[in-house]
Amino acid sequence: MNTFGEVFRLTTFGESHGLGVGGVVDGMPAGVAIDPAFIQQELSRRRPGQSPLTTQRSELDEVELLSGVFEGQSTGQPIGFLVRNTDHRSQDYEELRHVFRPSHADYTYQMKYGLRDHRGGGRSSARETLSRVVGGALAKLALRGTGISIDAYTEQVGDVRLGLGLESLDLSLREGNDVRCPDPSAAALMAERIREAKARGDTVGGVVAAVVRHCPAGLGDPVFGKLQARLAGAMMSINAAKGFEYGLGFAGVSGSGSQQNDAFIPDGRGGITTLTNRSGGIQGGISNGQDIYFRVAFKPVATLLMEQETVDDEGNPTVLKARGRHDPCVVPRAVPVVEAMAAMVLLDCLLLNKTVRV
Amino acid sequence: MNTFGEVFRLTTFGESHGLGVGGVVDGMPAGVAIDPAFIQQELSRRRPGQSPLTTQRSELDEVELLSGVFEGQSTGQPIGFLVRNTDHRSQDYEELRHVFRPSHADYTYQMKYGLRDHRGGGRSSARETLSRVVGGALAKLALRGTGISIDAYTEQVGDVRLGLGLESLDLSLREGNDVRCPDPSAAALMAERIREAKARGDTVGGVVAAVVRHCPAGLGDPVFGKLQARLAGAMMSINAAKGFEYGLGFAGVSGSGSQQNDAFIPDGRGGITTLTNRSGGIQGGISNGQDIYFRVAFKPVATLLMEQETVDDEGNPTVLKARGRHDPCVVPRAVPVVEAMAAMVLLDCLLLNKTVRV
Amino acid sequence: MNTFGEVFRLTTFGESHGLGVGGVVDGMPAGVAIDPAFIQQELSRRRPGQSPLTTQRSELDEVELLSGVFEGQSTGQPIGFLVRNTDHRSQDYEELRHVFRPSHADYTYQMKYGLRDHRGGGRSSARETLSRVVGGALAKLALRGTGISIDAYTEQVGDVRLGLGLESLDLSLREGNDVRCPDPSAAALMAERIREAKARGDTVGGVVAAVVRHCPAGLGDPVFGKLQARLAGAMMSINAAKGFEYGLGFAGVSGSGSQQNDAFIPDGRGGITTLTNRSGGIQGGISNGQDIYFRVAFKPVATLLMEQETVDDEGNPTVLKARGRHDPCVVPRAVPVVEAMAAMVLLDCLLLNKTVRV
Amino acid sequence: MNTFGEVFRLTTFGESHGLGVGGVVDGMPAGVAIDPAFIQQELSRRRPGQSPLTTQRSELDEVELLSGVFEGQSTGQPIGFLVRNTDHRSQDYEELRHVFRPSHADYTYQMKYGLRDHRGGGRSSARETLSRVVGGALAKLALRGTGISIDAYTEQVGDVRLGLGLESLDLSLREGNDVRCPDPSAAALMAERIREAKARGDTVGGVVAAVVRHCPAGLGDPVFGKLQARLAGAMMSINAAKGFEYGLGFAGVSGSGSQQNDAFIPDGRGGITTLTNRSGGIQGGISNGQDIYFRVAFKPVATLLMEQETVDDEGNPTVLKARGRHDPCVVPRAVPVVEAMAAMVLLDCLLLNKTVRV
Repeated sequence: MNTFGEVFRLTTFGESHGLGVGGVVDGMPAGVAIDPAFIQQELSRRRPGQSPLTTQRSELDEVELLSGVFEGQSTGQPIGFLVRNTDHRSQDYEELRHVFRPSHADYTYQMKYGLRDHRGGGRSSARETLSRVVGGALAKLALRGTGISIDAYTEQVGDVRLGLGLESLDLSLREGNDVRCPDPSAAALMAERIREAKARGDTVGGVVAAVVRHCPAGLGDPVFGKLQARLAGAMMSINAAKGFEYGLGFAGVSGSGSQQNDAFIPDGRGGITTLTNRSGGIQGGISNGQDIYFRVAFKPVATLLMEQETVDDEGNPTVLKARGRHDPCVVPRAVPVVEAMAAMVLLDCLLLNKTVRV
Repeated sequence: MNTFGEVFRLTTFGESHGLGVGGVVDGMPAGVAIDPAFIQQELSRRRPGQSPLTTQRSELDEVELLSGVFEGQSTGQPIGFLVRNTDHRSQDYEELRHVFRPSHADYTYQMKYGLRDHRGGGRSSARETLSRVVGGALAKLALRGTGISIDAYTEQVGDVRLGLGLESLDLSLREGNDVRCPDPSAAALMAERIREAKARGDTVGGVVAAVVRHCPAGLGDPVFGKLQARLAGAMMSINAAKGFEYGLGFAGVSGSGSQQNDAFIPDGRGGITTLTNRSGGIQGGISNGQDIYFRVAFKPVATLLMEQETVDDEGNPTVLKARGRHDPCVVPRAVPVVEAMAAMVLLDCLLLNKTVRV
Repeated sequence: MNTFGEVFRLTTFGESHGLGVGGVVDGMPAGVAIDPAFIQQELSRRRPGQSPLTTQRSELDEVELLSGVFEGQSTGQPIGFLVRNTDHRSQDYEELRHVFRPSHADYTYQMKYGLRDHRGGGRSSARETLSRVVGGALAKLALRGTGISIDAYTEQVGDVRLGLGLESLDLSLREGNDVRCPDPSAAALMAERIREAKARGDTVGGVVAAVVRHCPAGLGDPVFGKLQARLAGAMMSINAAKGFEYGLGFAGVSGSGSQQNDAFIPDGRGGITTLTNRSGGIQGGISNGQDIYFRVAFKPVATLLMEQETVDDEGNPTVLKARGRHDPCVVPRAVPVVEAMAAMVLLDCLLLNKTVRV
Repeated sequence: MNTFGEVFRLTTFGESHGLGVGGVVDGMPAGVAIDPAFIQQELSRRRPGQSPLTTQRSELDEVELLSGVFEGQSTGQPIGFLVRNTDHRSQDYEELRHVFRPSHADYTYQMKYGLRDHRGGGRSSARETLSRVVGGALAKLALRGTGISIDAYTEQVGDVRLGLGLESLDLSLREGNDVRCPDPSAAALMAERIREAKARGDTVGGVVAAVVRHCPAGLGDPVFGKLQARLAGAMMSINAAKGFEYGLGFAGVSGSGSQQNDAFIPDGRGGITTLTNRSGGIQGGISNGQDIYFRVAFKPVATLLMEQETVDDEGNPTVLKARGRHDPCVVPRAVPVVEAMAAMVLLDCLLLNKTVRV
């Protein structure tokens, strides 16, 4: 199952230390202006080596669109794309051929498939998310005319949590720092936490928050394809994600219905809006026209540059100290991945919503 | 999208106040002993009117298996099933024909489809989850020979949260009280919170926790079909679910990798196990043989038996006081639904895992 | 895989001698007027016992729509439906419990599943096609406003083949005889062939032809989802189908491109049409606005009311003379099934075609 | 819908005159020895310019496997692949920018998408089938250990039809001539027909026959996923295919059941076989262990190197004489494509069949 989506579908392939990573976007609507610079810019937000806070692997991540675009427009045909790997140093991983990193995918891949590409984590590497960002960038281009906007940002790193609510944030500030947090002072503290972890050879987790604005009412389906179910499945498929919530989420369970319901009111333009938006923009699995906001928890990266107890593939205890280049915190680079997954979900729902009437 | 799963697939239909609810289970493995009493018992855990803490709608919820079973065994053919609605009092809902309940699906269905069955919430009613419990019961029957067990329980109601961790709980106690909490004293407090809310015409939220035991390593897929992504999508498709987390979840983001990694150790029987299980039994999207545990947040039910400000379908402000019979807290009845969704996910992954080798 | 279609999806269940047959139509567009009498009328065209040329099993085949319809309109929610079996005489099939009918599904089901419901062929019975006719009738209702018409008819029975081409036929005549052939004199000969076979306890095959008129250009997809591939897969899934062709089909292989190409010409109304229609209304997998015509070959029914050599499930040779009530020729009752499958394909393509643009 | 298959899935991309063609094979079983030379050899059977009977476009069609293979074995991860286009002369197609070739996909693509890549037919070019051959070669590698063999051959070109039945043919001879017909004298006549057509700037059609041997009983599904339905959908998705039949096909409709049924007999080794195989190896949609044989009709290629009447995209009549390099007959190069599609269907069914039991 390396395909995501129903009518707008991304299929990805590629390993961290193979020839490259890429994919196919199928179901791209026809007639969309394809802006390669925008796609590249989205990739640069995910690129390794973009700041001292990320892995120092140096990849330009230049994507080649192989098909489906003609004279600057999408043709409705599948868009194949490829990014060659250039800076892989597979020799750094030779020691992992027979050893399982704690809390990593080495062991489970071995158990499931009977063999694995141990170099840089192979398919389990977060390098796969590059293809998601390409898919998401194409989805964003398709969404351009709709007004729908999707913005993710770093809300928490380790114990440093953004104190401000969404309504008090200026999201345009988030790209002004390496952490992608819209509050510069919080961002500085978060960067400090990442540097501390890195200095120890350790790693730290965090939370990415996101908001979808100007989404029309009607996206999502009543039962298994609820918009929140699609978003949750999408987000929880990102490497290191451990939790998802939307609206009031876990915090809302302790309140009462009378405190949390969003009263409907006239919007003054002949339509209907809500007085509050505790629901997070979705009711009964379907968008209601209000902002959709959600949070995704990411655990500390499992690969540590410090000694850890583990076993080899014959079950013998051993001590592992990983080499290679790794992120001390996945969160800053996860921000564009969260946006990409959300963009694909929303475009898919938008297209599916067209099939509700003859 | 009223179908769930890839090779074991449940398709559901039916409305709260229509003729009935039902579905089709396709991909049921052949040769499984079908125990109708067990299916009925699972349904009785979800049944309305089972205790003073739930809606007083009185449905026997007797399920009729229409196909796919021959002389007590599944034949590998689709199992159609039907439960007739008997105690629907649609007249209680006539006032909802033109009015949108706050934070309910009335408005979004109307916007999406241009019409809706307003009686008892129609398709958006949690009555749909009955079909999930039937699907889950069939999945549990298919899993019987594998040793995999799936147990959910109430962990929180309102502000009352179970203080004990999973390892200290005796899950066999959970069916001994109306709340389905394995700690009797906590259960009493939780029941009190539900009664209080009910007395006010209000509602209260909560958390359902679940654990999957004896799951073999290898279930789930590396990328979009990660086991946690499937579980998250499944759980977030349940009515009123607002959040999902597994392993350390949101709480784990503030820690460091060195504190959270699960060291591999020999299991003393020639295999490999882990010293701790902070990962929650899944690494890289694939089960590792340890217990899988996760939590699902449920918001307070939106339908209140008290006055709320809202608008009608012409945008005029109005005041609504719902009649009808509603749950003051969805959590006790959500427990078997969470188990059912988990059972279907696990069986599907187990069957898909057979296709990894020729 | 008891589900057919992508966004308009039919899932079927049920066996010949079980409690009944039924299904779920998911993706039915909202706001379609549901005419139960029309659905019943379509079923009556497939009904056993409708004439001396068909099986004498006597079923009223009254369908109950269980959901998804509200005050006469489709709601966009799944439509569950059920037809109870009433006239099954399972005792007629007891001898088939351990014996495999030649060229029937008894043996292959046993090999695949390890057990089978032998009564009346169980799931392999053409009784399953009842559910397809319900799905097709709903699709036809959804297509009503589009102008698309779908008409199948009997073109051949045994060696009696309709001499006239489609352009010379008055399809309105086809329901005037038991064979469903629009040429009354040919129909009489065909009926004679069926009666002859029946008198011998034997069976005879035939061909169903079909034409889709007023189909807009643009339906179908370029590669695997070509319109002809969808139609072929749909038709070849009908019991006893052995071949499919469209346009000039097999006959066209011996000609040359210059003889067969359809020249484009102005249509006199500012659009484009073709001078001829040898392509059969599809080019490159996509409808071109001309009539779509195709043919489906059906073999003689395998169940004979005469002695046949076969083996039992222990491999011992035996002689079988089937009892029970069977069709001497499947073709007259296959006509509405062919239409139903075509209607579902076309509606699905029509809905999918809406997703080609944002 | 550029994806084919359920658990073994091929997704393709690419245009005739774009950067290249390629795809992703997902669901490849793990641990299969990957023989690049075999894949290349299969491609050489489809390669343009392979003989005077095919298009003279000169492509080496060297495929690069981008992922999913590690130290010579499949890893169970998706296999991305790419073949760069090298010998496209797009200037030959400039005149097609605004003109619709008769019976080609130019018009329907324009109508569906509002724009098209006119160079060499873009996505509608048979160049796309290259990706199918790669997918099929991988499927054949996965099937190697099973004993299943798949062989297609040319049975008819124009009016020259192979007189011999399958049992009299030595299929090993078919690769000894440019036509891929196992009867050398018929092959010579067929080649003559192709040369004649080519000399006139015309094209000719034909039939590809295929046989699957040593297929175990049990592959395929009872209803919509019948093995013949999957094969039909697969074959009819190949460019220029107009018809599909298996077993006795269209010819069998005029016979009687008593003439055509295949009597079951003991196989002398404790199992069961059939005395004849008129069914074509499939009964009730499921393989019965006998040879599966089928035929696919291909129309004459639509692109002619002679003058044809047509219209431009403003509806003005014009005369077109195509340039570019085209096949005068698609059949010799369709043989490996038919095999590829069959291999993918069979592998998919084989893997799905593993999910029938827990």
